[in-house]
Amino acid sequence: MVTSQVVNTYPLSSYTFGTKEPKMEKDTSVADRLARMKVNYMKEGMRTSVEGILLVQEHNHPHILLLQIGNTFCKLPGGRLKPGENEIDGLKRKLSSKLAANSPSLQPDWQVGECVAIWWRPNFETIMYPYCPPHITKPKECKKLFVVHLSEREYFAVPKNLKLLAVPLFELYDNVQRYGPVISTIPQQLSRFQFNMIHP
Amino acid sequence: MVTSQVVNTYPLSSYTFGTKEPKMEKDTSVADRLARMKVNYMKEGMRTSVEGILLVQEHNHPHILLLQIGNTFCKLPGGRLKPGENEIDGLKRKLSSKLAANSPSLQPDWQVGECVAIWWRPNFETIMYPYCPPHITKPKECKKLFVVHLSEREYFAVPKNLKLLAVPLFELYDNVQRYGPVISTIPQQLSRFQFNMIHP
Repeated sequence: MVTSQVVNTYPLSSYTFGTKEPKMEKDTSVADRLARMKVNYMKEGMRTSVEGILLVQEHNHPHILLLQIGNTFCKLPGGRLKPGENEIDGLKRKLSSKLAANSPSLQPDWQVGECVAIWWRPNFETIMYPYCPPHITKPKECKKLFVVHLSEREYFAVPKNLKLLAVPLFELYDNVQRYGPVISTIPQQLSRFQFNMIHP
Repeated sequence: MVTSQVVNTYPLSSYTFGTKEPKMEKDTSVADRLARMKVNYMKEGMRTSVEGILLVQEHNHPHILLLQIGNTFCKLPGGRLKPGENEIDGLKRKLSSKLAANSPSLQPDWQVGECVAIWWRPNFETIMYPYCPPHITKPKECKKLFVVHLSEREYFAVPKNLKLLAVPLFELYDNVQRYGPVISTIPQQLSRFQFNMIHP
């Protein structure tokens, strides 16, 4: 794990993007998703998920890579840890599943950095909080967001049913309607970092 | 400077509160404040301000100490650095000016921890952003927020024209109307910390 207050960012044009087989969502509705969460909770206890904040730059401003499903919903690459799985290893596994080519020789060098936010789901509902609310002794999910330091050149393979977008911080900021409470406050969580914009 | 992912918090009842002479605001209106900022910018360049996030607990939930002016406006203790002043020293000076008794023997042990957010003011206007917006080469203010680790017992002396409030994270969260964009997203910025609630 890399901890640094400085994040090197490279232009979007440094990276190469291809496609791979679709990764379908496990659930087709929010109700299905919450029902599956409940079943998994009975079996395995609190769900722990990890997501990566991958940064690039355009016009000297940091941009975040988001996966778009359909025409509206955006999410960070990541997912649920297996029971007992280490957070960093689990995040690398999920990043490869979402963004890497299948060939082992084409895996990006995922440098997982600092945890920048932790969100809690108190009930089997969509709402999450950046703290475990008082009187909640059995939260249903804990979601951790990590900065991922990208190398200067990488090859990403994006599942055919998803789009990979580079979204500027100024677009995310104060835009809870479009990006939801977790993604729209990433600019605040990254504000303490110094972005070292590298122009190769 | 203390950097730790663990923040020890003590009950509000651990602390003793007294009063001291009023600390009047330097400006009586937003327009006055922005005009003074402009004059200072001409003389000294970009304003750097530092503010402290002081944490206590009540009912096992973290609370932040805010200074209330009049009946509505709340702010974090802190203020502007002198030209060339070190951030940590400047924050300690400002915390003492706002919250400590005048006697040197009654100064709290201000343990300044991690910087959790940096806000930028691009123009002589009230709006600030958690990044320096693109195309802004001469920001007018940079404001840094630091976690301040409190000892188990302290004596605070609050200026008579101000009230010191302990506000729970759940009250700040998603409450931009009441607390503004900077203070209302402190819960997100603190989410990555583990609060060690100590019950002496």
